[in-house]
Amino acid sequence: MTRPFNFSAGPAMLPQAVLQQAAAEMLDWHGSGMGVMEMSHRGKEFISIYEAAERDLRELLAVPAHFRILFMQGGGLGENAIVPMNCSRGGAVDVVVTGSWSQKSLQEARRYADAQAAASNEADRHTTLPAPTSWRLRDNAAYVHVCSNETIHGVEMHTLPDLAALGCRAPLVVDCSSHVLSRGIDWSRVGLAFAGAQKNIGPAGVTIVIVREDLLGHALPITPSAFDYKNVADNASMYNTPPTYGIYIAGLVFQWIKAQGGVAEMERRAIEKAQLLYGYLDDNGGFYSNRVARDARSRMNVPFFLADERLNEAFLAGAREAGLLQLKGHKSVGGMRASVYNAMPLAGVQALVTYLQDFARRHG
Amino acid sequence: MTRPFNFSAGPAMLPQAVLQQAAAEMLDWHGSGMGVMEMSHRGKEFISIYEAAERDLRELLAVPAHFRILFMQGGGLGENAIVPMNCSRGGAVDVVVTGSWSQKSLQEARRYADAQAAASNEADRHTTLPAPTSWRLRDNAAYVHVCSNETIHGVEMHTLPDLAALGCRAPLVVDCSSHVLSRGIDWSRVGLAFAGAQKNIGPAGVTIVIVREDLLGHALPITPSAFDYKNVADNASMYNTPPTYGIYIAGLVFQWIKAQGGVAEMERRAIEKAQLLYGYLDDNGGFYSNRVARDARSRMNVPFFLADERLNEAFLAGAREAGLLQLKGHKSVGGMRASVYNAMPLAGVQALVTYLQDFARRHG
Repeated sequence: MTRPFNFSAGPAMLPQAVLQQAAAEMLDWHGSGMGVMEMSHRGKEFISIYEAAERDLRELLAVPAHFRILFMQGGGLGENAIVPMNCSRGGAVDVVVTGSWSQKSLQEARRYADAQAAASNEADRHTTLPAPTSWRLRDNAAYVHVCSNETIHGVEMHTLPDLAALGCRAPLVVDCSSHVLSRGIDWSRVGLAFAGAQKNIGPAGVTIVIVREDLLGHALPITPSAFDYKNVADNASMYNTPPTYGIYIAGLVFQWIKAQGGVAEMERRAIEKAQLLYGYLDDNGGFYSNRVARDARSRMNVPFFLADERLNEAFLAGAREAGLLQLKGHKSVGGMRASVYNAMPLAGVQALVTYLQDFARRHG
Repeated sequence: MTRPFNFSAGPAMLPQAVLQQAAAEMLDWHGSGMGVMEMSHRGKEFISIYEAAERDLRELLAVPAHFRILFMQGGGLGENAIVPMNCSRGGAVDVVVTGSWSQKSLQEARRYADAQAAASNEADRHTTLPAPTSWRLRDNAAYVHVCSNETIHGVEMHTLPDLAALGCRAPLVVDCSSHVLSRGIDWSRVGLAFAGAQKNIGPAGVTIVIVREDLLGHALPITPSAFDYKNVADNASMYNTPPTYGIYIAGLVFQWIKAQGGVAEMERRAIEKAQLLYGYLDDNGGFYSNRVARDARSRMNVPFFLADERLNEAFLAGAREAGLLQLKGHKSVGGMRASVYNAMPLAGVQALVTYLQDFARRHG
């Protein structure tokens, strides 16, 4: 039986092979007599799972040795507070606003720091990317925050900014939740990158933080000890009990990506899927449209609109019948949204385009 | 095939029926075409899972209508900061120190409030319970914190204190992580109770907070919005993406407890298992001992020592061979520890006592 194709923005589709392995190992992991959920996080079995996940992620993203990988909790919204608690030193923080997520990061950082928008695409309804040369960066910024893929608005920063070339010495903080592992990361431009797992990595409840070592140890006194990066790093993510099962699933996803050919292959597939989908959305006689500037379009999250919005419910009902799930757009944007993460096969996008064509023919 | 018996203090053994159901539903929950990990937290499928879990927990613990149930992240250590952020109002906090966990709660609360130990059993090496009449409670305390079961030291407060009878009007905050659902809770004495899931509820990464409504809305300005109880309550735990799979597993555990006969039946079994194990530890000719005062002994976590600690490694190796896993004590206490949560059947404790007898006979 073919599984339906699930276009949820997150929590999102996972590779079938990962789910099958997790199901098979649920009651007994590798002859240990325990399921992974039942293991002490300090026992040798889980430590081996943790270390493999950390090692595989480091390899997949070519994370340099002077960066630490932390497995944390609280998701992107939690991290919006945890980053300024750890990195702002109570000073200035510059945030590039490109959509809902960076807007939330800005608001939350204001609890802890003098946070300002260095640039904003709000006047364009979050459909463009402000050029880095236009960003108003302050000399005393403790860090500069960008969201390199806006899940809700479907805007992706395909190249991370080179702050040094802009004359800025602050570290770059990147929320890469919704494109992580679909492309490489240029670590020479990054101080800290974080990602909620529930898009391209695994289950909700795991947040991955990859942080340059010199940024550890500067937390504000009001930082909860469980969210102090230095505590987490010094204790290999075991300062408090980590979300063990989520880390296990993430580790299976990392293995799956390696077996598929790594991040380069994920990127190749992402480009292929995005070209197919945007190609049709741009050339269908006006029945559907995507409103994001071409150079700012996300490969992962593709919002689109029917010209006649009265057809939305019929569109979604027909999609469900065709085995195309969770296509409804975010309430703040409306319309539809197809999230096309690593686990979505090309066949899923082909099936979506076929349905788009068919629905347009029947209702056009 | 019989599964081994897993005495881990947490993450801990889960009911076999729960794991079997989770494995069976991994790729397709109730014909939805999605596994639970893949569902949007805002879709009708996951909402139904969430609402059933909340309803079943409310029923099992007889939670009154004026208490809200929150599903959060960060575990007990995270909650040690989140509670004073939300409830201290920056004022006085009185903590009853009965072991490692309440000690950590006291230290963390000092980041946000004038936190003091109202009593301590440290002089007794955390093996007794200070009588509530001896607690030094301040008139201006914003709340009084107790840990009603100390997982590491094996000390359990079998009756929650009646603060009003002590002349104290502050709400009682209870960390019940390691006995939740093994006994009822007298909500008339409680302002807030929290529990990390990874002992009696489900997978690590879910924290349950049950809070009286009048305690919402008083968070300090430095509280991360994702950890502000009012935000979490107003958004039915969906202010940020909740740990969906962990909530699903917790819900299956709640259903399992209901099918077994509810919390009263869990308590009956806990008493039966504890009597069997402590009975043997107290009457074995001095080969093994438990050092906790009888009226303070935990039904959930039973630390014990071999009189000849040189036999510890042989004891643990033999236990593993006998299918009795994760019996090593916490490093801060040493010796052994058998955690006997709801999912541990009587047969597991019987097997442990048989092994204790056999090992003593061979080495005594």
